[in-house]
Amino acid sequence: MKIIVDAMGGDNAPLAPVEGALRAAQELGVEILLTGRTEEILGCLEQLGHKTIPKGVEIAHASQVIEMSDNPARAFKDKPDSSMTVGLKLLKEGRGDAFVSAGSTGALLSAATLVIKRIRGIRRAALAPVVPNATGSMVLIDCGATAECTPEYLLQFAYMGAYYAQRFLGIPQPRVGLLNIGAEPGKGMELQKQAFDLLTQAHEAGRIHFIGNIEGREAISQGEADVLVTDGFTGNIFLKTVEGAAALFNHALKDMLLGSAKNKMAALMLKNSIGEFKKRFDSSEIGGTALLGISQPVIKAHGSSNAYAFYNAVRQAQKVAQGDIAGDIAANVEHMKLAVGRKEA
Amino acid sequence: MKIIVDAMGGDNAPLAPVEGALRAAQELGVEILLTGRTEEILGCLEQLGHKTIPKGVEIAHASQVIEMSDNPARAFKDKPDSSMTVGLKLLKEGRGDAFVSAGSTGALLSAATLVIKRIRGIRRAALAPVVPNATGSMVLIDCGATAECTPEYLLQFAYMGAYYAQRFLGIPQPRVGLLNIGAEPGKGMELQKQAFDLLTQAHEAGRIHFIGNIEGREAISQGEADVLVTDGFTGNIFLKTVEGAAALFNHALKDMLLGSAKNKMAALMLKNSIGEFKKRFDSSEIGGTALLGISQPVIKAHGSSNAYAFYNAVRQAQKVAQGDIAGDIAANVEHMKLAVGRKEA
Repeated sequence: MKIIVDAMGGDNAPLAPVEGALRAAQELGVEILLTGRTEEILGCLEQLGHKTIPKGVEIAHASQVIEMSDNPARAFKDKPDSSMTVGLKLLKEGRGDAFVSAGSTGALLSAATLVIKRIRGIRRAALAPVVPNATGSMVLIDCGATAECTPEYLLQFAYMGAYYAQRFLGIPQPRVGLLNIGAEPGKGMELQKQAFDLLTQAHEAGRIHFIGNIEGREAISQGEADVLVTDGFTGNIFLKTVEGAAALFNHALKDMLLGSAKNKMAALMLKNSIGEFKKRFDSSEIGGTALLGISQPVIKAHGSSNAYAFYNAVRQAQKVAQGDIAGDIAANVEHMKLAVGRKEA
Repeated sequence: MKIIVDAMGGDNAPLAPVEGALRAAQELGVEILLTGRTEEILGCLEQLGHKTIPKGVEIAHASQVIEMSDNPARAFKDKPDSSMTVGLKLLKEGRGDAFVSAGSTGALLSAATLVIKRIRGIRRAALAPVVPNATGSMVLIDCGATAECTPEYLLQFAYMGAYYAQRFLGIPQPRVGLLNIGAEPGKGMELQKQAFDLLTQAHEAGRIHFIGNIEGREAISQGEADVLVTDGFTGNIFLKTVEGAAALFNHALKDMLLGSAKNKMAALMLKNSIGEFKKRFDSSEIGGTALLGISQPVIKAHGSSNAYAFYNAVRQAQKVAQGDIAGDIAANVEHMKLAVGRKEA
C-alpha cells in the first residue's frame, strides 16, 4: 500500500509532514509518495538524518503551494502544479492508495471533488472527524463541507458515517443519531424533521441503526451515538465549540496546577496521569478527518498537525484504504436514494 | 422590590425554590412572593425551620403545576391556575417586579409572551444565558426561544444582548459577535450573511459595537465577544455542546484524581483549588437565563436548580429589574427596525 502525502500543506510544512510520513514508512509497512518542492523535501530529509531518499519513500515534484489566502474553489485550477493538485492527480492515476493533506480544507474539498470525483449517486462529499465522547469517540458528519443541506444529504451522511464507524472505529452496528435541539421526534426545523423521517425509514428497512434525535450535551457526556449526523453549518459549530471548551478547560486546569507551590507539588504527582488525560482529548491522536463520498480515500490532516499527527493521519489513511469504505458506499448507494423515492411516492 | 418565584417549577421543587427564595429574602433585601400549592410550600418552610411564614415572604396559592409532559404552547391555558400562570399574571398586575421559574422553558416562553407580551416592535423574545469563556463570561442570544430566525430577529437579539451585557454584566460597550463557521465576512448561510450586513450598518450608525463573525472556538477559548448572536437552533446546539464538553471534562478529571492512591493524595492537596475551578464552570453561579424582549423581567432558572441556584436566580432577577433592560429596549426599538428599512430601501 502506498500513501501519497502533501509535503507542503499545514502550518508546520514541510518538516512535519515529511517527518511523520517517514516514521509511518518505517513503522506501518506502507510506502510513501511525497508531493512538493523536491529541494525543500530533500532538505527536510537531510535535517532528519537522511542524506539519500530512504527506502519506501518517493518524491513527486510539484513547484507550487496552495496558500490559505488562495480562493478555495479555484486554487486547484489556478495552481495546477501545486503539491495538493499533483497529489490528487497521482491518486486518480492509481499511483497511490490514499492521499493525506493538511492544506486548506476548502481547497482540498473542491480539488478532491473535481479531480477524484464523488461516488456516483452521492450528492455531496462530507467531512467526518472523530470526536471524543464519554464512551470513547464518535464520527461527526458533516462538519463543514456543505453548510446548507437537504434531508437527502443527511440520509447519505448517515450511511457514509455508519460505514466509516464500522471500518475505521470497528463498531459492528453503529448507533446513528441526528444532532438536534431536543430528543423527542418532531424537534428542530424542517431539515431535521424530514431527515428524521428518512432515517427512521432506513432504520425500519434494517439498513442503519437509527436511534433518534440526540442533543449536543448527551452526544458528548453520555456517548449516546457512534455517528452524529448533521448539516455542515451545525456540525462545524458543534466541533469548534467542543474544541473551544476543551481549550478553555485545559487552560483553566493548567492555571490551577500552577496556582500555588502546593498545587505545583500535586501537579508533579499527577504528571503521568495528566499526560494520559490530555491524550484523550488530543486531536493529533486521531490523525485527521476523512472526506467521505469521494471515490478514493482522502484524509484532511489538521492545519496545525505536528509530525506525530501526520504519522497518525497516514495510519488512518491506510486503515480507510484497507477498509474500502468507498466500496461500501458505492455498493449501497441505491438505498440512499430509494428511501427518498419512497417518501416522495 | 418584590420577586415572584414559581415554587413548583424544576426537578427539586418545591423545596429548592422555597429555600433559595428564603435565603434571598434574608440576604438581598428583596421581598418574595411564592406561587404554588400553599400546603406544600408551608411544609417546606416548616422543614426549613419556619413554623410561620417569615417576614418579607408571601404565598399566592395556585392549585396546578405545569409538567414537562404538558404541551408547552397550551400549558398556560390548559392549566390557568398553575404556579407559572398565576405568577406571570401577578407580575402583569404589578404585584411584583420580576418572575423566576424553573419550569418548562417552552411553557414559560409561551406563557410570558401571551400574558406579559413582548415589547412593542420586538418580533421574537429570546433566551439569553450567560456562558463562561476565557475572559469571564458572555451573553449568548438566542439559545432556543426561536429555532428559525430572520436577519431582523438577529439584529434585534444583538441590541437586546448588548443592553443586557451592559446592565447585568456591567460592560460599558459590549463587543457583539455573530456566531459563524468562519471569521471572514461572507461566511455562513443566507441568514448569517444578511445579519452580518444589518449588524455592520448598526455598528456604522454607532448603535452597537459589532466586531464581526466569531467561531465557536474563539468565542470560548479567547473570549472575543461579550455578546454572541445566533439563531435559536444554533445557539441551543452551542450551549448544550459546551455543557456536554464541561460534563465530560469534569468526569474525566474526577476519574483521573481517583485513579490511584498517589492521585488521591494529590487531589486532597488540590481540594480548595478544584472547588474554585468547578465554580468557574458551574451554571448555578449565574442563576438562570433571562427572557429578553418581554416587557417585564422573567428569568428561567435551570430545571436542575438547587437552592443556591434559585438564590442566584432571584439575585439576577433583582439586577435585571433594577437595570430596566426592557426600558432600554423599548427606548431604542425604532432603530432595530429602521436598519431593516434602510436595507430594503
